[in-house]
Amino acid sequence: MIRAWLLRDGVEGHEDVPVDQLVDAIDPPKNLLWVDCVDLTDDELESLQSQLKISHLAAEDLRKGGQRTKLEHYPEHYHVAVHDCGLDADDELVTREIDIVFSDGWLLSVRQPSDSSDDPSPFGVEAVTQRFDAERMSEDHVDDEDEGLLVWAFLDVIVDGYFEVNERFDDRLDAVEEIVFSSTRGDDIPKEVFDLRRSMVHFRRAVAPLREVLAAMLRREADCLGDTAIAHLQDVYDHVLRVTDWIESQRDLLTGLLEADLAVISNRLNQVMKRMTSWGAILLGSTLIAGIYGMNFTHMPELNWTFGYPAAIGSMLLLTVGLYVWFSRRGWL
Amino acid sequence: MIRAWLLRDGVEGHEDVPVDQLVDAIDPPKNLLWVDCVDLTDDELESLQSQLKISHLAAEDLRKGGQRTKLEHYPEHYHVAVHDCGLDADDELVTREIDIVFSDGWLLSVRQPSDSSDDPSPFGVEAVTQRFDAERMSEDHVDDEDEGLLVWAFLDVIVDGYFEVNERFDDRLDAVEEIVFSSTRGDDIPKEVFDLRRSMVHFRRAVAPLREVLAAMLRREADCLGDTAIAHLQDVYDHVLRVTDWIESQRDLLTGLLEADLAVISNRLNQVMKRMTSWGAILLGSTLIAGIYGMNFTHMPELNWTFGYPAAIGSMLLLTVGLYVWFSRRGWL
Amino acid sequence: MIRAWLLRDGVEGHEDVPVDQLVDAIDPPKNLLWVDCVDLTDDELESLQSQLKISHLAAEDLRKGGQRTKLEHYPEHYHVAVHDCGLDADDELVTREIDIVFSDGWLLSVRQPSDSSDDPSPFGVEAVTQRFDAERMSEDHVDDEDEGLLVWAFLDVIVDGYFEVNERFDDRLDAVEEIVFSSTRGDDIPKEVFDLRRSMVHFRRAVAPLREVLAAMLRREADCLGDTAIAHLQDVYDHVLRVTDWIESQRDLLTGLLEADLAVISNRLNQVMKRMTSWGAILLGSTLIAGIYGMNFTHMPELNWTFGYPAAIGSMLLLTVGLYVWFSRRGWL
Amino acid sequence: MIRAWLLRDGVEGHEDVPVDQLVDAIDPPKNLLWVDCVDLTDDELESLQSQLKISHLAAEDLRKGGQRTKLEHYPEHYHVAVHDCGLDADDELVTREIDIVFSDGWLLSVRQPSDSSDDPSPFGVEAVTQRFDAERMSEDHVDDEDEGLLVWAFLDVIVDGYFEVNERFDDRLDAVEEIVFSSTRGDDIPKEVFDLRRSMVHFRRAVAPLREVLAAMLRREADCLGDTAIAHLQDVYDHVLRVTDWIESQRDLLTGLLEADLAVISNRLNQVMKRMTSWGAILLGSTLIAGIYGMNFTHMPELNWTFGYPAAIGSMLLLTVGLYVWFSRRGWL
Amino acid sequence: MIRAWLLRDGVEGHEDVPVDQLVDAIDPPKNLLWVDCVDLTDDELESLQSQLKISHLAAEDLRKGGQRTKLEHYPEHYHVAVHDCGLDADDELVTREIDIVFSDGWLLSVRQPSDSSDDPSPFGVEAVTQRFDAERMSEDHVDDEDEGLLVWAFLDVIVDGYFEVNERFDDRLDAVEEIVFSSTRGDDIPKEVFDLRRSMVHFRRAVAPLREVLAAMLRREADCLGDTAIAHLQDVYDHVLRVTDWIESQRDLLTGLLEADLAVISNRLNQVMKRMTSWGAILLGSTLIAGIYGMNFTHMPELNWTFGYPAAIGSMLLLTVGLYVWFSRRGWL
Repeated sequence: MIRAWLLRDGVEGHEDVPVDQLVDAIDPPKNLLWVDCVDLTDDELESLQSQLKISHLAAEDLRKGGQRTKLEHYPEHYHVAVHDCGLDADDELVTREIDIVFSDGWLLSVRQPSDSSDDPSPFGVEAVTQRFDAERMSEDHVDDEDEGLLVWAFLDVIVDGYFEVNERFDDRLDAVEEIVFSSTRGDDIPKEVFDLRRSMVHFRRAVAPLREVLAAMLRREADCLGDTAIAHLQDVYDHVLRVTDWIESQRDLLTGLLEADLAVISNRLNQVMKRMTSWGAILLGSTLIAGIYGMNFTHMPELNWTFGYPAAIGSMLLLTVGLYVWFSRRGWL
Repeated sequence: MIRAWLLRDGVEGHEDVPVDQLVDAIDPPKNLLWVDCVDLTDDELESLQSQLKISHLAAEDLRKGGQRTKLEHYPEHYHVAVHDCGLDADDELVTREIDIVFSDGWLLSVRQPSDSSDDPSPFGVEAVTQRFDAERMSEDHVDDEDEGLLVWAFLDVIVDGYFEVNERFDDRLDAVEEIVFSSTRGDDIPKEVFDLRRSMVHFRRAVAPLREVLAAMLRREADCLGDTAIAHLQDVYDHVLRVTDWIESQRDLLTGLLEADLAVISNRLNQVMKRMTSWGAILLGSTLIAGIYGMNFTHMPELNWTFGYPAAIGSMLLLTVGLYVWFSRRGWL
Repeated sequence: MIRAWLLRDGVEGHEDVPVDQLVDAIDPPKNLLWVDCVDLTDDELESLQSQLKISHLAAEDLRKGGQRTKLEHYPEHYHVAVHDCGLDADDELVTREIDIVFSDGWLLSVRQPSDSSDDPSPFGVEAVTQRFDAERMSEDHVDDEDEGLLVWAFLDVIVDGYFEVNERFDDRLDAVEEIVFSSTRGDDIPKEVFDLRRSMVHFRRAVAPLREVLAAMLRREADCLGDTAIAHLQDVYDHVLRVTDWIESQRDLLTGLLEADLAVISNRLNQVMKRMTSWGAILLGSTLIAGIYGMNFTHMPELNWTFGYPAAIGSMLLLTVGLYVWFSRRGWL
Repeated sequence: MIRAWLLRDGVEGHEDVPVDQLVDAIDPPKNLLWVDCVDLTDDELESLQSQLKISHLAAEDLRKGGQRTKLEHYPEHYHVAVHDCGLDADDELVTREIDIVFSDGWLLSVRQPSDSSDDPSPFGVEAVTQRFDAERMSEDHVDDEDEGLLVWAFLDVIVDGYFEVNERFDDRLDAVEEIVFSSTRGDDIPKEVFDLRRSMVHFRRAVAPLREVLAAMLRREADCLGDTAIAHLQDVYDHVLRVTDWIESQRDLLTGLLEADLAVISNRLNQVMKRMTSWGAILLGSTLIAGIYGMNFTHMPELNWTFGYPAAIGSMLLLTVGLYVWFSRRGWL
Repeated sequence: MIRAWLLRDGVEGHEDVPVDQLVDAIDPPKNLLWVDCVDLTDDELESLQSQLKISHLAAEDLRKGGQRTKLEHYPEHYHVAVHDCGLDADDELVTREIDIVFSDGWLLSVRQPSDSSDDPSPFGVEAVTQRFDAERMSEDHVDDEDEGLLVWAFLDVIVDGYFEVNERFDDRLDAVEEIVFSSTRGDDIPKEVFDLRRSMVHFRRAVAPLREVLAAMLRREADCLGDTAIAHLQDVYDHVLRVTDWIESQRDLLTGLLEADLAVISNRLNQVMKRMTSWGAILLGSTLIAGIYGMNFTHMPELNWTFGYPAAIGSMLLLTVGLYVWFSRRGWL
């Protein structure tokens, strides 16, 4: 599905443009044509490609999706691929690729389908529109740089979503930490830790290349962005640095948690072994006493004592209590 | 075996060229001579070397094979060594070295034998020809840059094969993960993990240097490639980045899986030890009771009770049930 | 709460300035206006923004806080975000963000609330004032560079606080080390180690980017700092390098401690298992002897010997002593 | 022992030069004087130093040996230190330092003693001479660049030896791998792995800096090498990259093997514990039955049954078989 | 304590200079004034500061000590801080900070107190004097570069000391290795390994920044050093590279040793468990036989056999021998 709007300089609001008359609406210094697509069919793509003169290599990327986060220069336009990230109901990472192709006077945003069939919150352009309009109406806005501001609005919304993912990771790290160091721990920590690790690895793969993309923009490699947009993108760049710093910390802590978990398990095994040894000694000691008085020697004076039996039981109890105290004191029980 | 074709500018299709008349066919600005060899003999190589004026150092490389992925500059030509990768029936990595020597007007491709005696799918030039012809016939094609396009066709086919290897690795990672966290796990996980790791290490060694090779081409260090080819190679470069990113993630996850596996094993050992301790205590406790009433004291009133025997058996059962419940509640059984 | 002082060149001491007449006090080559805020309200921020002409992106950062350590260039001013660090009563890391916005003639310091609700020592400007005044009154002071000196005073006080955190980490590392290698060790080492690790990870995240901030200042990217301040900041830069070196060493040692701890636990487990095996053999051996003489064969000559019983007990003792000596010699007991 | 040859341009073969008349033989544009030493005495060194005008710092290096792989520039000459590597009978790494000092018109090669007293194959100059002569007699040889070609011949022979070391490492890795995953594994794997690791660490220390040495030569920092030599050294550089890549892969696999070994050991420990628990339960169960019928109660009807004894034995057998089947099915036996 | 010498160009030997007349002795192109201090008091420092015009930031560093290894540029002079390293009687690392402040015509060396109260070999200037004099008297010495040579003499003596530390580390690594793989190993390996690791971490922290210090000098950032000194410092730089390479290798081997140790411990635990299981089965088997013939059934024909008792004992022995052989063959005993 394609929708297209014309944004006239100095005029508030968006004008709808028929999808097959895009070329007429492009008028670089004055207006911005924004074409937004979702569930793009091959026919639609072909129409866009011929109208907007998109390179056939870029068009191929738009058709297939599955691009890595990148900024590519084509003679006639730029192509930015980014990934909106979120977590689904099972806390698995969901990524939604957004391809932004732009040049002087027009911007094409293609929202690729999410990589999870059961995506709880697909990417919506409303947040982008809202942020873009707000900035466009602010006083220090320069009219002919709307392309850059729209790119910024997309990136800003997407990167804001990264912080939520980070926060959710923090919550899960806290949960795992609590279980690792609690005395009533379950046995499914390795699975928890590994799931979290996988999410982090995938998240990092989506986010990390965005640093280079933004650095290239800040070096003004894409010349149609404009000064205001660059200043705003500096802010997004800073956010991306925070996100990647945060992921690194979280990965570090996760590794630390798994190591701590192994140490905790080893400690408990030691504890179990000591307890086992202690109780084994106590029970075997008493069994030995019983065994001794079960021998069939003719001359065993104790057997005929009136209090022989209570004495034997008593010595068993004494041994049990004695060993119990001794092992307790050494911390084995 | 050598085959040679002449590709005339503006003319569709390939013309066969006799192998001993290669020199006559070289006419840089107009045509492209493509020589393709497989199972190259020393005589054939000598003939090629003298006809195409290949440096004797490069000829030595072609003869011996076993080159690392690289781009080398010689005064008269360039030499690119790449490795086509695949997996054999046992999921072991198979690499097939392809050496491409090219200069203005001619390109020599030498397909070295695969490093596995039992290669399921040797590299075929058909895919290269097909992709090259398609691009050559496209409208925005410039005739005198066919050398670069042919280099691109080779690299594009080879790098596409890398994604299949990556996907197979992902499948195997999923399989290992399922076994690690399943309750009916086998004991051969370390071997599985190590085999996978070795394949990844070898794959990485073949793929990683391709980044530098392509970066050098994009910096136009090989001056006979042409603008169209450079634009296409940018795409291949991007694919190689995706492949290497992917390998890194997979290595990371594999390490995580082995660590998780160790934690799972430790957990199970703990569980086995607790169960062992519990059953030991239950059985030894009953044995002790039996031992006590096996003592031969003259004065043991219980021995003469009518219900002494059932009482003893009962106390054993009671102890067993009591300890069983107690240990179960603590999660030891 | 906002307070503002005017520092006239060549005049000792600070003059109070009404908060709504800041603009009049700015007179770049001659004076320095220092505005210090704590618990900034939105109204106060708006007033400052309009008076000092702060960029609305920077104002947004000041309002929200939670910035990463950074130096940002705006057309009209610079923005430095740093974090004062300390440890609370539970030895958890507390960070207090300080935002410094400065330009020719004025400096605004915003002290954000601490990230711990129970901060034992909130950041006070007194130390900054004192250090700044001392340097300002020194003989080799150049009057029109007060902005840079004030920035330096802030950073110097904050970085000095980092050393205290490092020293506390060293103390805790020593404490953990003593426990790991002591014979009466507790079981809570993994928790200790992990807590320490988390503090270090967070500390590092706050401190590490300060290197780049200072390097940028030393490269004179902020042109209103002045030569004296640059020379002083070189000193702070050196301190930050020492702090980050120190953290790296501490992280390295912490990792080493956890690994050593695992090895120690494994050694002890081995020791426990050997002791268990030894005592098991001793007790089971004696039990076997008792069992043998508890058999009911008609023809067992020893049973009728006068000294049969003492002999059996004696052989048990002999076995016990013999095995005890044997196992002791092998270091199993 | 010193030997010196004069190589006249355009003349095949070497001319002997008296060791005390070296100066007369140096005639840069035309000839090359090659001085080769082994077991250099202090007197000989002094004579060489004064005749060839070797810097006293370089002379000190030649006398003491133990240099790291490096290229050093002196005003009058260059000094290259490399290490020929091999493996002795116990598969321990042997390094033999070769110092090459060269300038326009002369080259001095000093073969330092091997670092192993029992070196199976000391470095011989014959291979160098042979390779140098072959290249010198080839058609595309330029006469006045013999210095560079001789340097190349040394490095080429040495680097070729590295591949043999790498191959031997591969063989040993395969051997260790086979043992780790075989069911009849020995216990000396950690020692094997550590020995291999140590050899790799030392090998890497000798080889890795050669990359920088060659890169410096390729950047033409040593100006007397000549174009042909540079082209040949490019080939050696490529070999060194292959060697270092290979070492990295081998280190990676070795780490993987040790981790796999730990996982295998843990698996086996788990298996042993389960078997132990199973047999313990079987034996203790039967012992308990025996204990029950060893009790001395007056009223134990089974004791007087005719088939009481066979029934007891039968129940023991039943219990044994039952538990055996049950544990086998669960994979504990 | 301060001592000062004047070194006149072309004149051998040192002339004493009164400590309060340093200024008169400074005469850059001709002479070198060397001031050496140990246990510097605040008064002495103040006198030096005013006489030599030392920056108050540098003076503060000299007073407090505890600097990181660095080279700092001040308008009037340079400041180099290095650390002489050694090992005390307990093999703990001792560092002794040496601060060298120099400019055209004078050099001030401040020997800070050692960081260990019980330093076996404090840094002595004698070695420096000796090396400096030897080089100063050599023939290729240029008179007006004495400042650089003195800096070199200090660094050369200090770096030579590093090799001794490295060698001691190698000895200790060998000792630990021998214990790890010996059969009569002690249990204190983790402590040994950790102590060694800590020493290495601290050593590395002292040595590693020296690379940058020397690289800066070789880039001639300190312009009063002179060509001869630069050539000599190249040699020191090379030594520092060797030292840091060596530390890296040692750290690598140490990590390898700890991992090998864990694998060895795991192997031994496996061995102990197998032995325990074997002996448990042997003893419990015999106990079961004894238990069976201890049952009180009326009809147990074996009990009345004449050779019943010896047969029972014999079957116990048979079982013991049989199991012993069986377990031995499987390598469990």
